[in-house]
Amino acid sequence: MSVMNIKLIIAYDGTAYHGWQIQKNGITVQEAVREAVKKVTGEAVNVIGCGRTDAGVHALNYACNFKTESSIPADRFKNALNTYLPKDIRCKSSEEVDEDFHASYSATGKTYIYRILNRPEADVFERNYSWHYKYDVDIEKMRKAAEAFIGEHDFIGFAAAGFTVSTTVRTIYDLKVHENNGIITIEITGNGFLYNMVRIIAGTLVMMGNGKIDYTKAAEIIASKERKRAGITAPPDGLFLKEVFYGERK
Amino acid sequence: MSVMNIKLIIAYDGTAYHGWQIQKNGITVQEAVREAVKKVTGEAVNVIGCGRTDAGVHALNYACNFKTESSIPADRFKNALNTYLPKDIRCKSSEEVDEDFHASYSATGKTYIYRILNRPEADVFERNYSWHYKYDVDIEKMRKAAEAFIGEHDFIGFAAAGFTVSTTVRTIYDLKVHENNGIITIEITGNGFLYNMVRIIAGTLVMMGNGKIDYTKAAEIIASKERKRAGITAPPDGLFLKEVFYGERK
Repeated sequence: MSVMNIKLIIAYDGTAYHGWQIQKNGITVQEAVREAVKKVTGEAVNVIGCGRTDAGVHALNYACNFKTESSIPADRFKNALNTYLPKDIRCKSSEEVDEDFHASYSATGKTYIYRILNRPEADVFERNYSWHYKYDVDIEKMRKAAEAFIGEHDFIGFAAAGFTVSTTVRTIYDLKVHENNGIITIEITGNGFLYNMVRIIAGTLVMMGNGKIDYTKAAEIIASKERKRAGITAPPDGLFLKEVFYGERK
Repeated sequence: MSVMNIKLIIAYDGTAYHGWQIQKNGITVQEAVREAVKKVTGEAVNVIGCGRTDAGVHALNYACNFKTESSIPADRFKNALNTYLPKDIRCKSSEEVDEDFHASYSATGKTYIYRILNRPEADVFERNYSWHYKYDVDIEKMRKAAEAFIGEHDFIGFAAAGFTVSTTVRTIYDLKVHENNGIITIEITGNGFLYNMVRIIAGTLVMMGNGKIDYTKAAEIIASKERKRAGITAPPDGLFLKEVFYGERK
């Protein structure tokens, strides 16, 4: 029987999930996708994700893949899976890829968005999709500090403890800070991110914008490799995986 | 003891609620507000709302009032209530009003917004906040049809059955249709609305935009007073109470 390797792009609202990866305590996105594939193909497949996401983190275009012996045309999986997926997970595309494509190992970069509601009052419609930071933030300080993060650095000072990787050196290609109607958006693209790295960078930039950490010291703080000199880990609700890159960087 | 009449403006995400009004089967917004007032004042008050909203309907600025013998300054209720209210209900303001102010009887008008996601694909982040209508819609036809609704009409053909009112004549002051990035927004202001009237007008305008109902017949359909000639009742998720007016119309 021939085997197809299917790549999916999915969007999900992470509010109700314990992150991507299957675990014992609580429902995860990976489990929901595996269940939907099982309903469509009858197969219990291993759905390989492009990376872990924490509980409460969202995705606009999360990439994953699985191997199937099903004869369903690759592009039909999109609609077939959407029939069975819960409404807070949607498949946006399905295609056949090379047999050696691996959603995590083949990834060459990712873009994340982090959203901050920067107003005195909370907003019921933003409560699951942003970090409500009510104190003053100077966007220009955030922008100047952001420049120090671009390039290749050892980001060990911007990683949560408790996981193993072969290297903590990562390259950030782009890091932009926008503001619109009280919503600050941080958009960051890199070749990879350590555990909680985007949330710690977001927390650091906001604290620099507020003045709690000196924004002119951003390069020095990165070079120090000391977690305690960086800012707090911003909450998961504001984080969105926007895109995963494969192959050469655009 | 002196009695204060307190007016609140609240915002709520109606997704988790069985509408405003207290009922036996399921938690309501009115109940949540009453519970919060009880925690703040120790009193079991009657919270008077500006009107019913159905399950799943949202509010940006819902008005309600209650009478209290508490000595808490009126403007402090906002923060005090927010301490106890769930995160999907926020009090935006609290003030003392005349003893005869009644959130429903004193209202002289309301503005509602109805949101339609008009794209082929669903959006996980819009699923509770819009009507996903995937078929073609001609905004210009909706706009032309909208003109027929403005003014004083007997809207009995645009009301759901099963309630009693002294008159089914209402005046619509304004009805606008906007489109931005696949989101169609209907904004409607009137001196009052019959049960499900905004949702039936939204359903009718969308069906006229799509061509299922002849948009040039809008005035004739209103004048016919026949519910069956109007469109479907659009789902509750897209409906937001934007504002309630008191006193003279602005």
